[in-house]
Amino acid sequence: MNNYDKYLSPIGRQLQESAIRRMGTVVARGTDLVSFAPGYPDAALFPWDDLREIAASLLTGADGNTLQYGPTRGYQPLLETLVEVLRARDIRATIDEVIITSGSQQGIDLAARVLVSPGDVVLVELPTFTGGIAALKNAQAELVGVKQQPDGLDLDDLDEVWQRQRRAGKTVKLLYIIPNFQNPTGSLLSLEKRRRLLEWADRRDVLIVEDDPYGSLYFDDVATPAETRPLRADDVNGRVLYLSTFSKTLAPGFRVGWMVAPAALVERFDTAKQSTDLTSGILDQRIVHEAVRRGVVDRLAPTLRALYRHKREVMERALRESLIDRLTWASPKGGFFVWATLPTGQTDTELLERALDHGLVFVIGSAFFVDGSGHDTIRLSFSAPSPDRIVEGVNRLAAAIAAAPVGRTS
Amino acid sequence: MNNYDKYLSPIGRQLQESAIRRMGTVVARGTDLVSFAPGYPDAALFPWDDLREIAASLLTGADGNTLQYGPTRGYQPLLETLVEVLRARDIRATIDEVIITSGSQQGIDLAARVLVSPGDVVLVELPTFTGGIAALKNAQAELVGVKQQPDGLDLDDLDEVWQRQRRAGKTVKLLYIIPNFQNPTGSLLSLEKRRRLLEWADRRDVLIVEDDPYGSLYFDDVATPAETRPLRADDVNGRVLYLSTFSKTLAPGFRVGWMVAPAALVERFDTAKQSTDLTSGILDQRIVHEAVRRGVVDRLAPTLRALYRHKREVMERALRESLIDRLTWASPKGGFFVWATLPTGQTDTELLERALDHGLVFVIGSAFFVDGSGHDTIRLSFSAPSPDRIVEGVNRLAAAIAAAPVGRTS
Repeated sequence: MNNYDKYLSPIGRQLQESAIRRMGTVVARGTDLVSFAPGYPDAALFPWDDLREIAASLLTGADGNTLQYGPTRGYQPLLETLVEVLRARDIRATIDEVIITSGSQQGIDLAARVLVSPGDVVLVELPTFTGGIAALKNAQAELVGVKQQPDGLDLDDLDEVWQRQRRAGKTVKLLYIIPNFQNPTGSLLSLEKRRRLLEWADRRDVLIVEDDPYGSLYFDDVATPAETRPLRADDVNGRVLYLSTFSKTLAPGFRVGWMVAPAALVERFDTAKQSTDLTSGILDQRIVHEAVRRGVVDRLAPTLRALYRHKREVMERALRESLIDRLTWASPKGGFFVWATLPTGQTDTELLERALDHGLVFVIGSAFFVDGSGHDTIRLSFSAPSPDRIVEGVNRLAAAIAAAPVGRTS
Repeated sequence: MNNYDKYLSPIGRQLQESAIRRMGTVVARGTDLVSFAPGYPDAALFPWDDLREIAASLLTGADGNTLQYGPTRGYQPLLETLVEVLRARDIRATIDEVIITSGSQQGIDLAARVLVSPGDVVLVELPTFTGGIAALKNAQAELVGVKQQPDGLDLDDLDEVWQRQRRAGKTVKLLYIIPNFQNPTGSLLSLEKRRRLLEWADRRDVLIVEDDPYGSLYFDDVATPAETRPLRADDVNGRVLYLSTFSKTLAPGFRVGWMVAPAALVERFDTAKQSTDLTSGILDQRIVHEAVRRGVVDRLAPTLRALYRHKREVMERALRESLIDRLTWASPKGGFFVWATLPTGQTDTELLERALDHGLVFVIGSAFFVDGSGHDTIRLSFSAPSPDRIVEGVNRLAAAIAAAPVGRTS
């Protein structure tokens, strides 16, 4: 039997692949490839010695529960620790408002499954994270894009889009947004807009899924921690579902993220998670808990901020040197990404093909747009490669751009 | 805002909770509780020294990918190792037919999401694993039960049920089955029935999800490895999706399971998994891989078989001593469970209440039935408690049964 199409569910037939994941596979195969593709943290900064010590201290056998099944909600001491972590972000949450997720990707997936009915409209930023797009589409949401400005979401466009959907008889249930160092644009939603967005959500009765993987990775030459204040910190009416993760601030291999939501919804997410994976990795949760408790995560944060700021500077300097007249981009204030617009006449897919020939991979911009646009954009991730490789990658990018067929470039 | 019901999707509204998980929470809270509830392996037999050594050897920082994001399909060397593990079970699978799942629970969930359209009929054993029931129901399957006999599924009833569903205009897409030491009954599907079941699936065009967590945990006084031969071993037409896990043979805290399926479906499961959790825990996969590679898992298996066989004997001896005239049960040939039928007039829910008063918890039998029946049954898991606690638990069970209101027992 070769054709299984007839057995597929509607979800199975329409499954949405993540362009970032696809590019990740390319990277895995490459030999001398420079990868600006996935938003991988720099593995050189994983606190190996601390983690090795912590793992050894946990795997003595003194507590059998270290490798046993655990509660779906999460390892209780980690949940308690997260309440403190959240308080440092000005989020007041009780323990029954927190659930551990297998990466924050699972938080998006649980929110989508529990909240989105097939055909419901979910509003997303133009552009936005492909993993968010995939999870929401796989819950059969209808994704509608809202424009972004340099200081984040365009609130006028947001309400216009909402009204248009309502006039068309649609239910607009959720807004999915990444306010801090957005993926892929790197933009930071202004504090003024955060305040107005919460008011809008109340007025229009829309829930907000706030995805915050990068908030603590601000660049201190251009941003302050106060500017990363989560929407959830000022959410008095229980409209915000807040997602975060240790993937960027400790290591992604542990798959430890979390979600903060009204207790009544956390109950539902817990039940949905039961049938999804029973529980997130137990050893992983205990290692992460111990790393937070021992201060490893807090001590690491300034180093991470300095390193990624430096890499951003290396990438921008190289871009200015070799591509200032071809590419435009906004300098990111934090996070992992430079979001660039191509010379007139060049497209992201054609450029990617040429870039692969030159030994470079990135993510095409159009993958982040739910409206079919964005073919004049690309996402360059500077987080994983070394400074030397960043320079080398930008040189390859310049060569690939220069190699466009005559008459096709500006 | 207190009421979020209006925001819920159909899935969110009808979420099915796992009774086993609920009982797990009771256990977590209890003080002097004896737990026959969840199918937890015995943590005393986790190979702590090996695992501590392996974790330390992996967390040196020599390979940054140890804690990085990894391929959704799974850690390549582990996939290659699984092809060998499968060959030892007489399953010939190529590497593109295997995907790592976050516990075999995720395998059920992915199969359900990718294959089950809302309203599709999925056939399940009466009784069956509550985690399977929950995952399938949360994909909006209509679950229809098929009777079991001492040697497993009743194949006559299977075809009658199938015909009845077809006459009612229903699509019967899947059969979910646990052939080896079934959860909860402990029954072993006979080899003759395995052969006939595969023929039936071809004739009726039904896919089979074969869940095999317990296959290597046979009791060698009453069963042989040959009797645990997976359906997938003789599946020439690509009808069987085979699930297994290291949760019972190494440790569940790693959340490393896997699924074997036709390559075309594995592609779909991969895409679905991308938006679910991106990837299973990377360190976990590497630890498990190293434990298999070093022979830890193979060396452990005979010890596990001997221990669980011993615990089964302890439980059955205690049951014979104090409850032979009140309970009936079939002696399991492997796995973790004794499935018992209560004295006439007693019900699982009332008995559980009394048992909790006596410091004992188990899972009510009716939780495993999709047709509302089974209130005269209970599942007693002997895998986790020590022999002494098993005896103590059976004594408490006897006391709880004896404490039934006069006139209600046989």
